[in-house]
Amino acid sequence: MNPVLVEVLRGAQVESVHRGSVAVFDGDGKPVWEVGATARPVFPRSAVKAIQALPFVESGAADAYGFGQRELALACASHSGEPAHAELAAAMLEKAGLDGGALECGAHWPTNHAATVALARSGASPSALHNNCSGKHSGFLCTCRHAGLDHHGYVKAGHALQEMVRGALEEVTEAAHGEDNRGTDGCSIPTYAVPLRNLARAFARMATGHGLGPQRARAAKRLLSVCMAEAFLVSGTDRADKALMSAAPGRVFVKTGAEGVYCAALPELGLGIALKCDDGAGRAAEAMIAAVLARLVAPSDQSLAARLGGLANPVLKNWNGIEVAGLSPTAALA
Amino acid sequence: MNPVLVEVLRGAQVESVHRGSVAVFDGDGKPVWEVGATARPVFPRSAVKAIQALPFVESGAADAYGFGQRELALACASHSGEPAHAELAAAMLEKAGLDGGALECGAHWPTNHAATVALARSGASPSALHNNCSGKHSGFLCTCRHAGLDHHGYVKAGHALQEMVRGALEEVTEAAHGEDNRGTDGCSIPTYAVPLRNLARAFARMATGHGLGPQRARAAKRLLSVCMAEAFLVSGTDRADKALMSAAPGRVFVKTGAEGVYCAALPELGLGIALKCDDGAGRAAEAMIAAVLARLVAPSDQSLAARLGGLANPVLKNWNGIEVAGLSPTAALA
Repeated sequence: MNPVLVEVLRGAQVESVHRGSVAVFDGDGKPVWEVGATARPVFPRSAVKAIQALPFVESGAADAYGFGQRELALACASHSGEPAHAELAAAMLEKAGLDGGALECGAHWPTNHAATVALARSGASPSALHNNCSGKHSGFLCTCRHAGLDHHGYVKAGHALQEMVRGALEEVTEAAHGEDNRGTDGCSIPTYAVPLRNLARAFARMATGHGLGPQRARAAKRLLSVCMAEAFLVSGTDRADKALMSAAPGRVFVKTGAEGVYCAALPELGLGIALKCDDGAGRAAEAMIAAVLARLVAPSDQSLAARLGGLANPVLKNWNGIEVAGLSPTAALA
Repeated sequence: MNPVLVEVLRGAQVESVHRGSVAVFDGDGKPVWEVGATARPVFPRSAVKAIQALPFVESGAADAYGFGQRELALACASHSGEPAHAELAAAMLEKAGLDGGALECGAHWPTNHAATVALARSGASPSALHNNCSGKHSGFLCTCRHAGLDHHGYVKAGHALQEMVRGALEEVTEAAHGEDNRGTDGCSIPTYAVPLRNLARAFARMATGHGLGPQRARAAKRLLSVCMAEAFLVSGTDRADKALMSAAPGRVFVKTGAEGVYCAALPELGLGIALKCDDGAGRAAEAMIAAVLARLVAPSDQSLAARLGGLANPVLKNWNGIEVAGLSPTAALA
């Protein structure tokens, strides 16, 4: 039974509660802090996009197409479908001689509300370029083209591209990725449930390079680096990931995943973090990761801890802008 | 510790879980079925709109303005802001010599996505008429006008209108409504946390009239009746409340509230129901209420139970329309 990690308070009353588990590991694979059932498998969903992007870098595709940190960051993104995101995905595909029609992630309206309203006002409809995963899929397609693979069906388990991705996930997480623990993600690629502690260890390895070969270690550090430098492209306007990474430029990497998952890394401290909100709530996972980061950096940087503490205790306003409720991490995270 | 009532399954794995509590009472105030901590106070939020609408009927305002079942249903609604909803709210206000400018609920884009896109495409912006609570607030304003009350500040605790509403809530739920258990709702009116079992008893009384005076009993039955007859106006396109009430016309009343609350009544069986999903998830509360209703009607109507069973086990599709996950009630609700 995982403990309550976040409470939702309205007036003086607890209105709702969110349970969860947290794992923090160092680059040597040793546990630093664990809360709840961290051996339980969870689907990391989009929280492992930086690992899924390793073949894009390691294959030489990213460099061959002349991509810089913006394109690499977008390949690790769950973006909000704002114009800058959709345009950059289109530009990446063009370099590989493709267009949005090659994307197999499906189309949806931008998750950013202002972008949806603007798109509707323009008379246009959303395309797969607005899909929050279009950057990752553009990276997949560029990797296919560079490697001379037929890109059709690149989302399917068993396709050579997905085998490259699965290989990277298996090595970095040190967990089996097979049919038994496979599900299908929102963007149609496979997602594999692995123990939460393996995800934390994986991001400690991504941050430190420990346990990875030299080429993979370089690619991993480069990907975390570009995400921290281009936090907007990895997420979007008013997104938690942007706020968290902007709170400490170059020192905090975070990546959200659907159903209340976060993976994160603190390169300076050589730590990897993974957490899962039991009920899948993004609002709670955001407060949890902010509270966990604040706790880990507090001894060395109280000013940063205070900024993160603000993100861990968001206020909920109603349609008249009145503060009516708020989220608050419990003592289990303090 | 409330039990897990709904699981989210992806592939063969449980991805997320939702805990909760359920209370079912009869018109004599006797418990019929209780799961979890039903004595714990919960904010019912919009789930008690039919009780909050009692003064609108009892004061004679609804009849004085010539309102039929459509207007009464809208006064109990958490609607999706579709054109029919916004237009009917405007028409109600016009009857009382007011317009949307008198609403104090705040403006927001329609919760129905197609309505948001259409509104944006028309070049317009949302008004308070699109607020999901505009029908309730129109009922409040009509009650003020009919009773000769200054309507300004009608959302505030202590305003004569809110005192009428508070009085109705106190009598029907048999629970104190005061400063100690008061919070502010999304539409700026007070909301009071009361034990879940009191909410279940309250809806058994609304359905049967037991324990209420003759005038209140008539108003209560009339309000539940109009909601069941006008399920679209109470909710909207593709909404769970519409689907649940349409599954058994005139036999099932349900009303959702924010943060995972449902209140419901089965007039034929003389039962009232209240449930709360611990973490506030609407998706889980919808599956829970469908499962609870299916269980209660199963002995007398297996065909209806089967239809409700389908609503209790919704499938989640991704952006390519592929079934990737599903919600499933646990044995605790079977």
